[in-house]
Amino acid sequence: MAIVSFKSLISNYDAIFLDSYGVVKNSSGIIKGAKESIQRIRDLNIPFRILTNDASRSPVEHAKRYREQGLPDIHANEVITSGMMASFYMQGKIAGGKVAYIGTEQSARYIVDANLEPIPISQVKESNFHEISAMVFLDDEGFDWNTDINSTVNFLRKVNIPVLVANSDLIYPIGGGKVSIATGGIANAIETILGRRFIHYGKPDVQMFMYAYRQITKTGLIPMNKILMVGDTLKTDILGGNKFGVQTALVLSGNTQIERYESQIASTGVIPDYICYSIAD
Amino acid sequence: MAIVSFKSLISNYDAIFLDSYGVVKNSSGIIKGAKESIQRIRDLNIPFRILTNDASRSPVEHAKRYREQGLPDIHANEVITSGMMASFYMQGKIAGGKVAYIGTEQSARYIVDANLEPIPISQVKESNFHEISAMVFLDDEGFDWNTDINSTVNFLRKVNIPVLVANSDLIYPIGGGKVSIATGGIANAIETILGRRFIHYGKPDVQMFMYAYRQITKTGLIPMNKILMVGDTLKTDILGGNKFGVQTALVLSGNTQIERYESQIASTGVIPDYICYSIAD
Amino acid sequence: MAIVSFKSLISNYDAIFLDSYGVVKNSSGIIKGAKESIQRIRDLNIPFRILTNDASRSPVEHAKRYREQGLPDIHANEVITSGMMASFYMQGKIAGGKVAYIGTEQSARYIVDANLEPIPISQVKESNFHEISAMVFLDDEGFDWNTDINSTVNFLRKVNIPVLVANSDLIYPIGGGKVSIATGGIANAIETILGRRFIHYGKPDVQMFMYAYRQITKTGLIPMNKILMVGDTLKTDILGGNKFGVQTALVLSGNTQIERYESQIASTGVIPDYICYSIAD
Amino acid sequence: MAIVSFKSLISNYDAIFLDSYGVVKNSSGIIKGAKESIQRIRDLNIPFRILTNDASRSPVEHAKRYREQGLPDIHANEVITSGMMASFYMQGKIAGGKVAYIGTEQSARYIVDANLEPIPISQVKESNFHEISAMVFLDDEGFDWNTDINSTVNFLRKVNIPVLVANSDLIYPIGGGKVSIATGGIANAIETILGRRFIHYGKPDVQMFMYAYRQITKTGLIPMNKILMVGDTLKTDILGGNKFGVQTALVLSGNTQIERYESQIASTGVIPDYICYSIAD
Repeated sequence: MAIVSFKSLISNYDAIFLDSYGVVKNSSGIIKGAKESIQRIRDLNIPFRILTNDASRSPVEHAKRYREQGLPDIHANEVITSGMMASFYMQGKIAGGKVAYIGTEQSARYIVDANLEPIPISQVKESNFHEISAMVFLDDEGFDWNTDINSTVNFLRKVNIPVLVANSDLIYPIGGGKVSIATGGIANAIETILGRRFIHYGKPDVQMFMYAYRQITKTGLIPMNKILMVGDTLKTDILGGNKFGVQTALVLSGNTQIERYESQIASTGVIPDYICYSIAD
Repeated sequence: MAIVSFKSLISNYDAIFLDSYGVVKNSSGIIKGAKESIQRIRDLNIPFRILTNDASRSPVEHAKRYREQGLPDIHANEVITSGMMASFYMQGKIAGGKVAYIGTEQSARYIVDANLEPIPISQVKESNFHEISAMVFLDDEGFDWNTDINSTVNFLRKVNIPVLVANSDLIYPIGGGKVSIATGGIANAIETILGRRFIHYGKPDVQMFMYAYRQITKTGLIPMNKILMVGDTLKTDILGGNKFGVQTALVLSGNTQIERYESQIASTGVIPDYICYSIAD
Repeated sequence: MAIVSFKSLISNYDAIFLDSYGVVKNSSGIIKGAKESIQRIRDLNIPFRILTNDASRSPVEHAKRYREQGLPDIHANEVITSGMMASFYMQGKIAGGKVAYIGTEQSARYIVDANLEPIPISQVKESNFHEISAMVFLDDEGFDWNTDINSTVNFLRKVNIPVLVANSDLIYPIGGGKVSIATGGIANAIETILGRRFIHYGKPDVQMFMYAYRQITKTGLIPMNKILMVGDTLKTDILGGNKFGVQTALVLSGNTQIERYESQIASTGVIPDYICYSIAD
Repeated sequence: MAIVSFKSLISNYDAIFLDSYGVVKNSSGIIKGAKESIQRIRDLNIPFRILTNDASRSPVEHAKRYREQGLPDIHANEVITSGMMASFYMQGKIAGGKVAYIGTEQSARYIVDANLEPIPISQVKESNFHEISAMVFLDDEGFDWNTDINSTVNFLRKVNIPVLVANSDLIYPIGGGKVSIATGGIANAIETILGRRFIHYGKPDVQMFMYAYRQITKTGLIPMNKILMVGDTLKTDILGGNKFGVQTALVLSGNTQIERYESQIASTGVIPDYICYSIAD
């Protein structure tokens, strides 16, 4: 597949969805030229949304962080996180009680947003097992891996409650070619050990696409093939966009490298409609 | 979990989604009492939809079959199939060309509905590989398993096109306690052999729920917790409903037996909000 | 890793194990030069064995086929098949009764060798379920896929007996760049559907290595690092040899192509001690 | 399946293999009556071996621990560990260099036994990547999970070396109905993240059985069906014994509970020849 200019694609679409990490920003900050491309989308009055599997922060905190990094105009309601999807689930389905979590105190905000009381896994003891009505994996930081992952296994062996994973990614890049295990990687290990599957949120599942779609179509119908999803990861961004039925563009500014994109498309069978160097190109 | 009466639940909801096989019908025909329960839902003016992973027939054919079996009032637009989801995908994403399929000629209707030309896998040869722009698994009947499954493996090893699975179920019941391998079981075997994953449609993925939701909410907003999904299978109906965020009721008139439901809920971690004997109860 | 000459390696070893397909023969017959290399091994009085996952024929039939194809000197006791391992299991563990099988009548020989009575899956009915004490997957030919694979699923859902897979390979090459699904691919699909694992024989499991080792060491001890396993497939031949602890040489005359061996070694993590073009080189 | 007396089985066999944890000992110490049963096996001059997936200690340390717990007569050469199998592999296949490990300093003994130099993962840095010729997972203790598991992922993404798992168990019991994640559970999580499989040692793989078999048959041949493997876990002890071809007895004094053994045998398809309460019975 030939590489095309992202800027030349923009005006063909009535709405654009962007992944965050690897598309808008990376470990060094905002990707050079991304600010100008986003401004161009705005100037053309094309609605856009940032869809991120990062559940460690709220949309407000994401917007604040963009501002600090030099992208001043992102509004909180333009950011859609997998944590929001988990939060909606809890709001609709968990009647009350405490929700145990793996993650930072900051990430537990998604539990509070669902009008439920968060309790870190370190405070879950056999004596209060009965008070816990759900568990959610939010972040890979904020707890002791050895103690708290073992506690989680023992807790979930004993109780039968809904378990949510607010971010299914196994790893995330931390700069310098290195990665960290994400909360989805921890959840996946526990699922294998317990022999059961939790409820996962985030791309490639289509809930975030659906949520974004409903927001942007409030004022009128947009055909699916007039929406473009832009991402750097075949198995989440592009697969999710393909499943949802919108057009997809793979950018080579993040997880997928220029030397490998053709063999990765062939081996995964996940085929984007376009390949671009980056959204700045 | 205690077993409750389905009829007593109905009036608490503003919309009801029903699985078909194991809920409305089984291998002997329409489940005794299902007709009366559906009539009661209608009498209360509660919108309902039947969500089925059966992509071997179109909604019109499903409605006709219900009529023949003694359920005369189901309209085609009350039936939502996983085949429709695959068809929407093809319509939006496949620009032209032929679509190879595994299934009956009847099931290939979903390709025609997407304004594309179906070609059975038996007619796919190296000489026409280049004309094929997608492949879809529609039904487990209508082809020779030995020849055509091997042909599919060899075809997909050579080309790089989107592959859709219109029904992810591995098996389906055929009466007398027996099952048949479904098109999803055949697709799954080929995915393992090729080491890649196709694009799957059907419960527990939430597309059908989203489609049904958008239909019933055209005339006004319905909160998620005022919608009830009713199904006989934890891993498709109940997991899908839970992910989508609606209330869920497991019925014991199909795949899940009364002696086993508690251990299956515990081992899968998929927890319905209610358990009922059947929709007739 | 650099490519070295196989012939230059031979004299460093006290015993040599060879895979058959892709190493000694391919779809066109005996690989050019293989006969001379095997003769050289014999001339140096180095004991060797052919270890094959092909359970469709007995060692006697394999030797006969080699003769017909122009390799006259292979003795039946130099050929070790995964079918033999399954046969030993049945001999030791199945006290009596009939053994149901998927495969050709020829392959059922392995059941007769275990002093048990074979019955093809097509003759297994609910009325004789109780007579069957084990089931074995032997070959991908000799039965009707649609009818008999579905029968197998329904049979195994009802009974609780040992199930053996005499060849775990998912596919095998049939020439012209094409493959056929092997009996292991069929077994794997059924395992996924039933949610349980059968007892698998064949490389990379170490039973065949152990059997070969015991044969060649009858007349004296050979250190593990003086034995060389030669194969064309990383995940069976090389992984098995590595696990067993012998030296391993990957040849590029079969499944693994010269353009891909480095990336496949990197992605699988299965690392041979040597790479050679072929045993003729 | 009926439960039979273990003591009544002993005299039918010419050799007995015992799992350790759940069979000979548990979190409270030596299982009541185990000492007397082992004495009886000795009195009958039946050779026996203890086969354990616990690679955190050497056979000498295992024997010492048995002595401290009240089982004075176990000799180190009667204990066979999965760590020994990994050690043999390293001895035969790793020519030199350092071997990185996850585990305690005590467990690193298995690397020293292979005449190689151990280096804990915490001391592996990009500057010494090139000195490391293999990596081995030995124990779940002795390192910082958060830092060192992430370091392991980043290290293995960059190098292409053999990786061994000296114990494939996902969890192990720690008393009071609780479990801890074993080194195999940690390895498994990393394998999923990297998308590759390491070389695993321990039951159900047959290497330990083969090693034990060769030891006890040094002075004469013992037919496979005159050997009994006794274990408390279907998927390791019993599956391994069945694959190796010896008779198998499941005891209910460990992982498998009396209320569940029938459903677990049915769901796993792993069928022991006998069921006993314990080796004391």
